[in-house]
Amino acid sequence: MTDTVLEAQGLAIDDATADRLFRTARTVTTFAESEVTDEQLAAVYDLVKWGPTAMNTSPLRMLVVRTPEARERLVARMPEGNQERVRNAPVTLVLAYDTDFHEHLDRLVPHMPGARDMFAGDAGARAEMARTSALIQAGYLIVGLRAAGLAVGPMHGIYDQIDAEFFAENGWKGLLVVNVSAADGADTTRPRAPRLNFDDAAQVI
Amino acid sequence: MTDTVLEAQGLAIDDATADRLFRTARTVTTFAESEVTDEQLAAVYDLVKWGPTAMNTSPLRMLVVRTPEARERLVARMPEGNQERVRNAPVTLVLAYDTDFHEHLDRLVPHMPGARDMFAGDAGARAEMARTSALIQAGYLIVGLRAAGLAVGPMHGIYDQIDAEFFAENGWKGLLVVNVSAADGADTTRPRAPRLNFDDAAQVI
Repeated sequence: MTDTVLEAQGLAIDDATADRLFRTARTVTTFAESEVTDEQLAAVYDLVKWGPTAMNTSPLRMLVVRTPEARERLVARMPEGNQERVRNAPVTLVLAYDTDFHEHLDRLVPHMPGARDMFAGDAGARAEMARTSALIQAGYLIVGLRAAGLAVGPMHGIYDQIDAEFFAENGWKGLLVVNVSAADGADTTRPRAPRLNFDDAAQVI
Repeated sequence: MTDTVLEAQGLAIDDATADRLFRTARTVTTFAESEVTDEQLAAVYDLVKWGPTAMNTSPLRMLVVRTPEARERLVARMPEGNQERVRNAPVTLVLAYDTDFHEHLDRLVPHMPGARDMFAGDAGARAEMARTSALIQAGYLIVGLRAAGLAVGPMHGIYDQIDAEFFAENGWKGLLVVNVSAADGADTTRPRAPRLNFDDAAQVI
């Protein structure tokens, strides 16, 4: 691929990468046997942790659900239509936001002494801010998992039950459940659905 | 770079791309003169539109703020500390979610006839669902802008004022304001802040 072609399509990454991250990547719902290691997940995290968040608060957390016992605890807190997917995935991540993210701000925001104390008294503001930034980070993470050659199947869980079961003590709140598989062991059963055009989704003023 | 090195770092994309998308990319706050075209923004949209959303609802919308008149209307609805940044950026995007996303579901979810009607009577559920998926899409978009060789400066606006000024008639709700610049015309004034380690942000069970 030449630079001319890249410029013509308006991207600065090559076609194979654009395909891998977005264009041909599909949400997967069925999984052949495959392995996803904690080392791979850590590599993904170490890539996407650099993505911007409000004030560098970095509130995204992830529960890596791997053992059969932990998996069944999660399956019981998923909507019925998603239970088999969680049961069959090589590994499942429960993405969450940390309502106590301020405890890390002395380290994360050294340019703003006092940031921690500023948030300490306002749990409502923390929850709103953490949820917003962590969802944006969930977008980074989905791209990052694909950048590691993995396949993803994001879906929703029953979060009040998930929070009570897994996060009663650490202040995390569930946001999204993501099945993860090696790409060559994963598939989807559905034809790709259309998307909106730029002109449908954007206005220029 | 060899495949062995790629495997060692756990990623399936090359180092230069990992740097461009995450590792060396920085949130920019100062801008030399540069141009960002609607064609570039459309190319970014056409890349990231493929990212997964709940039920393929695809609720992210963007207002591309380009003219001096439109820019001043936005500047007046930004917190004081962000006003100069918006004034000086080549182009600014107001990312939003569409509370009327259900109007597009016959097209977006052809495999679920009746999806549109299912949502038509529940504005509260639509708003919650749209906000959640659109924030994840905002994460895709930030990565996509960088994939097009652009530099981004995400920040928050005063959304009740932004919604009243720009979105009174179309049902969009502001989520995030993103300055966009050609990468070589953009910079930041702050040393890079630390991030949490995988072991701080993840638990394995």
